[in-house]
Amino acid sequence: MTTDTDTTHAQRGYISDKKGYLARLKRIEGQARGISRMIDDEKYCIDILTQISAVTSALETVALGLLDDHLRHCVADAARAGGSEADAKITEASQAIARLVRS
Amino acid sequence: MTTDTDTTHAQRGYISDKKGYLARLKRIEGQARGISRMIDDEKYCIDILTQISAVTSALETVALGLLDDHLRHCVADAARAGGSEADAKITEASQAIARLVRS
Amino acid sequence: MTTDTDTTHAQRGYISDKKGYLARLKRIEGQARGISRMIDDEKYCIDILTQISAVTSALETVALGLLDDHLRHCVADAARAGGSEADAKITEASQAIARLVRS
Amino acid sequence: MTTDTDTTHAQRGYISDKKGYLARLKRIEGQARGISRMIDDEKYCIDILTQISAVTSALETVALGLLDDHLRHCVADAARAGGSEADAKITEASQAIARLVRS
Repeated sequence: MTTDTDTTHAQRGYISDKKGYLARLKRIEGQARGISRMIDDEKYCIDILTQISAVTSALETVALGLLDDHLRHCVADAARAGGSEADAKITEASQAIARLVRS
Repeated sequence: MTTDTDTTHAQRGYISDKKGYLARLKRIEGQARGISRMIDDEKYCIDILTQISAVTSALETVALGLLDDHLRHCVADAARAGGSEADAKITEASQAIARLVRS
Repeated sequence: MTTDTDTTHAQRGYISDKKGYLARLKRIEGQARGISRMIDDEKYCIDILTQISAVTSALETVALGLLDDHLRHCVADAARAGGSEADAKITEASQAIARLVRS
Repeated sequence: MTTDTDTTHAQRGYISDKKGYLARLKRIEGQARGISRMIDDEKYCIDILTQISAVTSALETVALGLLDDHLRHCVADAARAGGSEADAKITEASQAIARLVRS
């Protein structure tokens, strides 16, 4: 699901708190593994749903942080450069926001 | 984040397609690991956000499936038994739905 | 967008707090009119977005309340009656929940 | 729920398609009135929930459009001006996005 923009767009340094994000993702992976175990053990459904809501919220927090970094660096840089690149960056950011709001 | 209801409420057999859920969760774990790697490699922010939206949607699909199983078994059984147990089960289900809608 | 199930399914008495719902909807209508005015007056965008988030949350609260009423009456009644009607009611409720979670 | 930033921040001309937004809001108001009537007439709960999901989605579409306008004008202008004003505008936009994602 990653695209070939990965290579061309890799931009060192725009992520504000890489260590913090990696720690959060580590915790999210652990929670996902925990949900697997709960399903395998057929734990009480409501408890599994509570865990899923917690993981979803944690992922949203990561997404909102990365989006803030993105606006603060890529989008602001593009706005300063101006022209069609600025327009394209904002369209792209708006589409990513729409996916987050609707997911 | 699991509670002591885990032990008391474990109910074998209510999960409709355990193998399917476990396969989905395995994929979700892999995606979470992929997001970690993308952050570590400082891939393009928008591509990371796309992956997070995909994981969030996948988790929602699991949650909606488990909730359907829960209504179909636990809640329907409680409704048939009637009384305060039925009321309590529906209150608990409504609270889980609210957490999903708001997360 | 209403369907012909409206007529056939009208069921007096299942709504727990009709007066409360109508008061909330009245407030929501007023807020929607307020948003129109804010757009017409070109108020500050962020303030309009705050109002939209407030209306969305208020609508979700109404939806979650109605869903609780629905589970407590229609779905529980169908579960007690049993058979394919019970299955159909739960499928229908699950689909409505999915629309709420994803909207 | 509007704030005193209304007056200071009113900025003519940043809304891309005012007529389109007002038409959508008019439709949303009508739908909200329709939901009131459905509750008053005790229409089938699932049909009311379908209408609420439709209104919520319509409001989200308006919010995402206004947010795109905001990024394209206010945020981009502030980025070009630079300094603490740019930082403040992006923080404010990120908070509005978070409210939309979580509502």
